[in-house]
Amino acid sequence: MSYDRVWTVRFSDTDPFGIAHYPRIVDALHETSDMFMEEIGYPFWEISQDHGFGLPLVEIDFEFESPVEAGDDVTIALTPEVGTRSVRFDYTATCGGSVAFEGYEQRVCAEHGGGGAIEVPADLRDAMVPYEE
Amino acid sequence: MSYDRVWTVRFSDTDPFGIAHYPRIVDALHETSDMFMEEIGYPFWEISQDHGFGLPLVEIDFEFESPVEAGDDVTIALTPEVGTRSVRFDYTATCGGSVAFEGYEQRVCAEHGGGGAIEVPADLRDAMVPYEE
Amino acid sequence: MSYDRVWTVRFSDTDPFGIAHYPRIVDALHETSDMFMEEIGYPFWEISQDHGFGLPLVEIDFEFESPVEAGDDVTIALTPEVGTRSVRFDYTATCGGSVAFEGYEQRVCAEHGGGGAIEVPADLRDAMVPYEE
Amino acid sequence: MSYDRVWTVRFSDTDPFGIAHYPRIVDALHETSDMFMEEIGYPFWEISQDHGFGLPLVEIDFEFESPVEAGDDVTIALTPEVGTRSVRFDYTATCGGSVAFEGYEQRVCAEHGGGGAIEVPADLRDAMVPYEE
Repeated sequence: MSYDRVWTVRFSDTDPFGIAHYPRIVDALHETSDMFMEEIGYPFWEISQDHGFGLPLVEIDFEFESPVEAGDDVTIALTPEVGTRSVRFDYTATCGGSVAFEGYEQRVCAEHGGGGAIEVPADLRDAMVPYEE
Repeated sequence: MSYDRVWTVRFSDTDPFGIAHYPRIVDALHETSDMFMEEIGYPFWEISQDHGFGLPLVEIDFEFESPVEAGDDVTIALTPEVGTRSVRFDYTATCGGSVAFEGYEQRVCAEHGGGGAIEVPADLRDAMVPYEE
Repeated sequence: MSYDRVWTVRFSDTDPFGIAHYPRIVDALHETSDMFMEEIGYPFWEISQDHGFGLPLVEIDFEFESPVEAGDDVTIALTPEVGTRSVRFDYTATCGGSVAFEGYEQRVCAEHGGGGAIEVPADLRDAMVPYEE
Repeated sequence: MSYDRVWTVRFSDTDPFGIAHYPRIVDALHETSDMFMEEIGYPFWEISQDHGFGLPLVEIDFEFESPVEAGDDVTIALTPEVGTRSVRFDYTATCGGSVAFEGYEQRVCAEHGGGGAIEVPADLRDAMVPYEE
């Protein structure tokens, strides 16, 4: 069961052809990760202070399959895949029944302050697992 | 009765002091105008094509009274003030019971394609009036 | 002698009418304040750590007089006006010989960490004065 | 010989840890493509009107290897790889002698208005070839 949110494309996201600029799509994808972490009780703005670790991004790979326009309601589904010392967020964005864009963010679990990768804490894993495929 | 929406400040909006960068606040204010116009049935992305006019911005004036942080739920209230050939959107944003920022966008009603100011069409006026103070 | 920089409007700044979205103009104005502070030796990213104070924004007022398009080279001139406990940055942006947008940012000088307004330090004043009108 | 530009990370790009938010890095990468197309005489804002084709993005893949901070001067090098009906822009961003982030944008060459992929026009190819590896 993925985590789903609806992103409404705004006029201010659109280009001279009336479609969303791709950096605005990246903003929407990233906002989704922020919403998801809040939803499961580990908001990005708390985990380093309260739990001493973070999930810094190491790679993004997104494919843009069909353009989206102002007023489009795009459902962005996030599915986490929890590894031992890393987490991958898979995204599929659909609009009007077809895929508009999709891809992933690869993140590592790291101690706050610059230590190396650590194991994903058990309670974070437990919070993410219900959203795995 | 103002048009209200809740803006949740995201981690990606925040600065080294943990508070929202002001250009991100401007994004949130502008998004609110877009949501309002959609709500009343005159989305920015349709009015010029379908109705032949626009509401280009001529001035913004915003005051920042207290900072907002990631995770804050900020209620942004928009109150339109409809003039003869112009519209002003007044904003008041509150968080935790006190004003965080407020101000206005001054817009003119203009024919699409660069004619001068025109009178605000009666049906647009009718759609906005219920939200006036 | 104002501090001048050239902002080239990018395709990704533009809207369905081929003109810059206004939040992108605000980004360009704000970037100019950042470039100016770096130029005079007091970059925003250093003053609070190294000098213990900041220049938080309390108000912006911008007027948009003529639209700018992708590829336009817009000269943004910043003129500081140094008060006792505050600083105002005046902006005038010209393109092709006429004013495209103008306005100001009003900032206070405040101790880092939330004390009240303090006097603008003498050395910061000295660094800004050559750019005053 | 790649196309190189220097991106200075701004205070307004940075997060609570003092490093650039990744959507701001994506903005900087995309801006580089815009600057490159302008440099070679085929700005994004002209090609569809003047030449009848575009280079819509179909995929991005970026890796983030070390964080960048406000004030960092990051050299972003763009190397085009011209295919028959597509173009790939490879990016390598270095700061202080080491790679900060790198990756690519995959673009197709398409007729404006939604036809399928077309061959990269010979004159555009000629303009890009000097920057190939």
